[in-house]
Amino acid sequence: MATETVTLEGHIIDSLILAKVLDTILQRRGTFTIKEMHVGATREDASTATIAVHADSTQRLTAILHAVQPHGAVVEHAVDCTLESAPKDGILPDAFYATSHLRTQIRLNHQWLDVDAIEMDLAIRVTLNPPRARTVPMADVKAGDLIVTGRTGVRVFPLERPHERDAFAFMAADVSSERPHHPMIADVAKRMRMIRDNRQKACTDGEAACDPDLGTKVLFVGGPAVIHAGGREALTWLIESGFIHVLFCGNALAAHDMEASLFGTSLGYGLRAGCAVPHGHEHHLRTINRVRNAGSLTHAVESGLIQDGVIASCVRQHVDMVLAGSIRDDGPLPDVITDTRQAQTAMRAALPGVGLALLVATTLHAIATGNCLPAKVPTVCVDINPAVPTKLSDRGSFQSIGLVMDAASFLRQLAQALGWEG
Amino acid sequence: MATETVTLEGHIIDSLILAKVLDTILQRRGTFTIKEMHVGATREDASTATIAVHADSTQRLTAILHAVQPHGAVVEHAVDCTLESAPKDGILPDAFYATSHLRTQIRLNHQWLDVDAIEMDLAIRVTLNPPRARTVPMADVKAGDLIVTGRTGVRVFPLERPHERDAFAFMAADVSSERPHHPMIADVAKRMRMIRDNRQKACTDGEAACDPDLGTKVLFVGGPAVIHAGGREALTWLIESGFIHVLFCGNALAAHDMEASLFGTSLGYGLRAGCAVPHGHEHHLRTINRVRNAGSLTHAVESGLIQDGVIASCVRQHVDMVLAGSIRDDGPLPDVITDTRQAQTAMRAALPGVGLALLVATTLHAIATGNCLPAKVPTVCVDINPAVPTKLSDRGSFQSIGLVMDAASFLRQLAQALGWEG
Amino acid sequence: MATETVTLEGHIIDSLILAKVLDTILQRRGTFTIKEMHVGATREDASTATIAVHADSTQRLTAILHAVQPHGAVVEHAVDCTLESAPKDGILPDAFYATSHLRTQIRLNHQWLDVDAIEMDLAIRVTLNPPRARTVPMADVKAGDLIVTGRTGVRVFPLERPHERDAFAFMAADVSSERPHHPMIADVAKRMRMIRDNRQKACTDGEAACDPDLGTKVLFVGGPAVIHAGGREALTWLIESGFIHVLFCGNALAAHDMEASLFGTSLGYGLRAGCAVPHGHEHHLRTINRVRNAGSLTHAVESGLIQDGVIASCVRQHVDMVLAGSIRDDGPLPDVITDTRQAQTAMRAALPGVGLALLVATTLHAIATGNCLPAKVPTVCVDINPAVPTKLSDRGSFQSIGLVMDAASFLRQLAQALGWEG
Amino acid sequence: MATETVTLEGHIIDSLILAKVLDTILQRRGTFTIKEMHVGATREDASTATIAVHADSTQRLTAILHAVQPHGAVVEHAVDCTLESAPKDGILPDAFYATSHLRTQIRLNHQWLDVDAIEMDLAIRVTLNPPRARTVPMADVKAGDLIVTGRTGVRVFPLERPHERDAFAFMAADVSSERPHHPMIADVAKRMRMIRDNRQKACTDGEAACDPDLGTKVLFVGGPAVIHAGGREALTWLIESGFIHVLFCGNALAAHDMEASLFGTSLGYGLRAGCAVPHGHEHHLRTINRVRNAGSLTHAVESGLIQDGVIASCVRQHVDMVLAGSIRDDGPLPDVITDTRQAQTAMRAALPGVGLALLVATTLHAIATGNCLPAKVPTVCVDINPAVPTKLSDRGSFQSIGLVMDAASFLRQLAQALGWEG
Repeated sequence: MATETVTLEGHIIDSLILAKVLDTILQRRGTFTIKEMHVGATREDASTATIAVHADSTQRLTAILHAVQPHGAVVEHAVDCTLESAPKDGILPDAFYATSHLRTQIRLNHQWLDVDAIEMDLAIRVTLNPPRARTVPMADVKAGDLIVTGRTGVRVFPLERPHERDAFAFMAADVSSERPHHPMIADVAKRMRMIRDNRQKACTDGEAACDPDLGTKVLFVGGPAVIHAGGREALTWLIESGFIHVLFCGNALAAHDMEASLFGTSLGYGLRAGCAVPHGHEHHLRTINRVRNAGSLTHAVESGLIQDGVIASCVRQHVDMVLAGSIRDDGPLPDVITDTRQAQTAMRAALPGVGLALLVATTLHAIATGNCLPAKVPTVCVDINPAVPTKLSDRGSFQSIGLVMDAASFLRQLAQALGWEG
Repeated sequence: MATETVTLEGHIIDSLILAKVLDTILQRRGTFTIKEMHVGATREDASTATIAVHADSTQRLTAILHAVQPHGAVVEHAVDCTLESAPKDGILPDAFYATSHLRTQIRLNHQWLDVDAIEMDLAIRVTLNPPRARTVPMADVKAGDLIVTGRTGVRVFPLERPHERDAFAFMAADVSSERPHHPMIADVAKRMRMIRDNRQKACTDGEAACDPDLGTKVLFVGGPAVIHAGGREALTWLIESGFIHVLFCGNALAAHDMEASLFGTSLGYGLRAGCAVPHGHEHHLRTINRVRNAGSLTHAVESGLIQDGVIASCVRQHVDMVLAGSIRDDGPLPDVITDTRQAQTAMRAALPGVGLALLVATTLHAIATGNCLPAKVPTVCVDINPAVPTKLSDRGSFQSIGLVMDAASFLRQLAQALGWEG
Repeated sequence: MATETVTLEGHIIDSLILAKVLDTILQRRGTFTIKEMHVGATREDASTATIAVHADSTQRLTAILHAVQPHGAVVEHAVDCTLESAPKDGILPDAFYATSHLRTQIRLNHQWLDVDAIEMDLAIRVTLNPPRARTVPMADVKAGDLIVTGRTGVRVFPLERPHERDAFAFMAADVSSERPHHPMIADVAKRMRMIRDNRQKACTDGEAACDPDLGTKVLFVGGPAVIHAGGREALTWLIESGFIHVLFCGNALAAHDMEASLFGTSLGYGLRAGCAVPHGHEHHLRTINRVRNAGSLTHAVESGLIQDGVIASCVRQHVDMVLAGSIRDDGPLPDVITDTRQAQTAMRAALPGVGLALLVATTLHAIATGNCLPAKVPTVCVDINPAVPTKLSDRGSFQSIGLVMDAASFLRQLAQALGWEG
Repeated sequence: MATETVTLEGHIIDSLILAKVLDTILQRRGTFTIKEMHVGATREDASTATIAVHADSTQRLTAILHAVQPHGAVVEHAVDCTLESAPKDGILPDAFYATSHLRTQIRLNHQWLDVDAIEMDLAIRVTLNPPRARTVPMADVKAGDLIVTGRTGVRVFPLERPHERDAFAFMAADVSSERPHHPMIADVAKRMRMIRDNRQKACTDGEAACDPDLGTKVLFVGGPAVIHAGGREALTWLIESGFIHVLFCGNALAAHDMEASLFGTSLGYGLRAGCAVPHGHEHHLRTINRVRNAGSLTHAVESGLIQDGVIASCVRQHVDMVLAGSIRDDGPLPDVITDTRQAQTAMRAALPGVGLALLVATTLHAIATGNCLPAKVPTVCVDINPAVPTKLSDRGSFQSIGLVMDAASFLRQLAQALGWEG
């Protein structure tokens, strides 16, 4: 009979963590004794539990400890993490530790150390002098890099459920088209206002003055339906009003937006007239050709070729844009990063400081962004197809909400909640 | 070789009718000679074509004539329709003519006679003195009723494509979530205003003063998501402002609406608070119980039990309500017609005068209503699930448009377009 | 400070019940002391917990007890339930207890008594001599009936998670199109075989010989797409082979099935030819007319009018059929119950003994059936639209699984797993 | 009054081309006189029409001619096409002619010349000595290349409706979940058999022996759900049996397939066990890491690391694989082309000879492939979400069919129709 003692700490009752840990032990044919349990008297107080886990073999015990670790269970007499060298450039040691998107620490020289730039499905690279741990994508690892392997000496911190009701107190799993969207949009608007204020404070009074947990940037990730469906004016207003600070999109959103500027159509559909224009698809291609000729989005705007819309406002407001290529692109436009790995790197570089992510009407970019976001960043996923918000909310963050509605209605209502009169 | 001459008349070029007729003849292995063709010089002018249809057997010729008839092809030396008596109550002659939802005439005593109350999938009952033809549902036929059989002496008038662009100039097949909804909602609003004005004229200056083609009633058909999703206030405003004159719904919409009035929730979801209320589903049941106790919706409102919302406004504005039962109803509420055939009869009785039908967030009621509407009534079908508008627009009317969006966003934007400031 | 002691018993750890109860107390601003806790050593052993709940007012304490009751928390010094007379026919006392679909007991004369025919959203009617409790729909209550009110003296038994993996060990929430369906269909087939064997045993050796928990009937609930989509042959084989014992459907499934028998089409689509047949929709109406003329489904089959298919097999195999009407029906066919309340009553009458429910390609009938089924009956919901299985699985039963696939593929694969060679 | 005479030739009646041309003229406020019309006596015979088009200005006349050109109308006294030099590398002349996916000719030195490698939304590059025309993507054009501009001297050939019924005689618009899939899958299987035979003939008797219209390759384009959903075995069998010759997919399908080979899971879901495996997502990452270590897919298979499944069979059967990267990729695997433009080039290079394209459970790759396919290649799009086949069939080819069903059911039924006994 093998035994090991683990401890749990935090809001382990209300977040169901204790229950899940005990159940996980039994499921894997272990048994347990609760050696100590202090339950906090109120929801605000933390609780602790000390649990002896028993199993009939060391192998089974290891499997159990492995399984309870993502719930925050820490083996009591903690040991340091194990490190192995990457065998080649771009290749991890076979037993590398794969990260989750939750706050994570490793134990190095008897000290717990935060892992920087946490993101799911990466490895952890360690440098020793000074001791530092940071996630690294598989393709970026170099031969000889020290990589965390196995599971000992690693602990993760489960997200705790927010205490006050705001939009982000909704359970993620709760993607439903049978709920009123209005209160949620109001809460999103409130947070956007708070982040804009926080950003202002950082600008005027210095970084130290702002609330780092709140963040100083709103990330907008959008698909072409944002333009098709009639959300262009509202989104432009949001950018002009300083509510959006980072834009991730593909070739199509940008091309449709600039087509609307040059021809008044989107993929040949007359946005104002509300009807199809003959040979309209040509507008799409001619737009791309002219902007390519301008050399860059910035030059297309500054030269006066593109005078209004999402891209023009982003250029004028110095919004950080990452345009990532895909295999269905026409053209593509200048500034589109056609190498998908380089595009991922550019996206990651733009994330620090993001305090709210709006993922609207795009499956590809929404999932790609979701993969890079730490669990703690509130995320709103909007799509007419319930499968997309559901996929996102499978990430299992309390901070993520899904709205099943069309992009234009969302953007119009959001902009109205922030003062737009369009 | 059998031959018969048919004539086509109307906008047979631009509506593709001529092309379809010729193709249908060839498809069924017939041949044809175009004996005469006058093509109107402009889109406004009618064209005519006289076509001799040839086939190698009388049987084949009959099949061809049968197949071209729905496109408006009329056999030149027209003969009277054939009539047979219904053999029993509720049973039609086996060869009964099944109607489409297009304007239809039968030939009786050498005269073409309009079929009243045209609707798809019914039979035509004829009375002789005076000559009258009217649709009859299978279940309502009485033994001995004279029923049109076969296909001779029946002609239908294909819908012609509208000439001016308004919302109802869109092709029905064009259900897409990639189009801006805004111009279409604006056009729907415009038509609602026109119908309200027309109704006003009928009230003040008499029926003769109003435009009968435009209609004097707007029909709203809604599912429970109208309330869940947060469309209750906008819909109430539309009713109070005189824009809605007939309401078709089920037990659930009415119960959710009155639950919101009594408890501020909808199926237990706090509409204002934006979060679930414990045991909220009980509110639904208690609402139904209390309204049953009041005896009728009218009494529930007039007694002060129900003070606001959709049902209260319908009662106050004398909106004609048909609540049709279904097997998933709790209760049901008083005034719900639990017999589905009686409910269909009540729906049919409310349709004359309807000039616009809004079908929002309901599959069952939308399809049931679609089945009863003549093709000429403009119809807007709104659903978050594209399958529903697609099903509706398979009816093949130029007058039908589908919007893939959530009910609340539609109602809010429609009400805003008509002056709501909510 | 008000205090009350509650007890929890059963698999309260692995089913997360304990955690949910503690969290519910804290959420509603109560506090608690765990007075005693015995955790079962293995997953098979039950656990118990005795918890003192504290709140700052009696009102708040009542609200908390109210909220933890659905998780199975029983107030220790239990008192009898309260009873009130129904004020009128069809009207419940305002404070009536609304049932869940979980096993429920009431306390009457110091004795716990099972509530018969448990089903969600009904009231509990009590007769005293001898003491009996049974659910009653609102509309069926008579003036003077004794109805349970409030929440004292009522306890419910949460479902416990199944221990062995079979299809019904899947979590309900797990509706996903990204999972292999094959293992689940195999498990459904296995259970169908077990139920058929159990039924055989009941027939040959008497009721006492069979396993009552397993059930002796499989319920099939289907929409018209079962026929359209090409599932008719597989379903007919399942019925002929004795795997289906109850059929719930609407007018459309039956009409399409018999249209296929008479004309080889379904709504005019040639099932064999794989292409549309001209004027095919007439076949639908002529089928209904002929079967109406036959007077009943049984007579239509026995007279030789309908020779094969789902309905013919149901008649021959003495399958218990409930055809419920809806407002979109043509005809309807004889045997369709047009009154929705009578249809609900007929559905309820057919449920005792059902050990597996297959809900295929129908929203209306699936939800209506789901409302009537006790939580313990394993339920499989199949639809091409993920919204339908999701809605069903919101019922919160561990016993319910959703498959996102087309009806025909499901039926063909299920029949193949049971030996069909079609 | 400006006038120009155009001619139409081909199956212009049954394909509705004549009707559309006449309507287009009227819509754009032109008028017309039919100068001559010979209608073929049977469906097999071609018809011709000579039409004088009148308009009140040359500008309007030009717009009309522009609009009727895609329907095959050719200006009678045809002139040569106009050519302009590309101003820079990667930039087209502003007025470049944008291609459709229909067979196209340009007129050069009084001769009509076919455009090679036709594909939608590209430009046409001309070389003069000898005269050659070929499509060119915008990004591949070089400064000075001769590019067709405007619309004179270009004619396209509308697709003609197939005469015999097979799967590809279905109308594309007809995406429906209410149709039986079986006859269509049988027709797809039949065509796959024909292409395999044709390929055999080309191999044994030389290219000249085979039917070039039928094609010698089947292209399979798949998303990861092919593996998740349980279609791996059937697809592997199809490859092993020589029915698939080109594979387009992304990183995910390949990684899931090889994960199944190494760990028996797909994204951590136990394919055989039918339940989730703890920390299963790690399997995905470890698979990618090990295959990266192998250096290439071919080496991973040949070294014995990957022993079965889709990729292993493709390597063994010399299937031409194009793995295109996207921004949501983990890793990625070796052989994934991370540059999206290079990936498009690789896809185009693999298309010649393709006689059937199966697009299964992928939006991104299906649309990207659809963009590159000439209209004449029969295409089958399979997805559980009806939006994907609908988008594809908007391409407007008679040769394209959509099936709304899950990937695994499709692949299993297709393989069974071809002799699989799994």
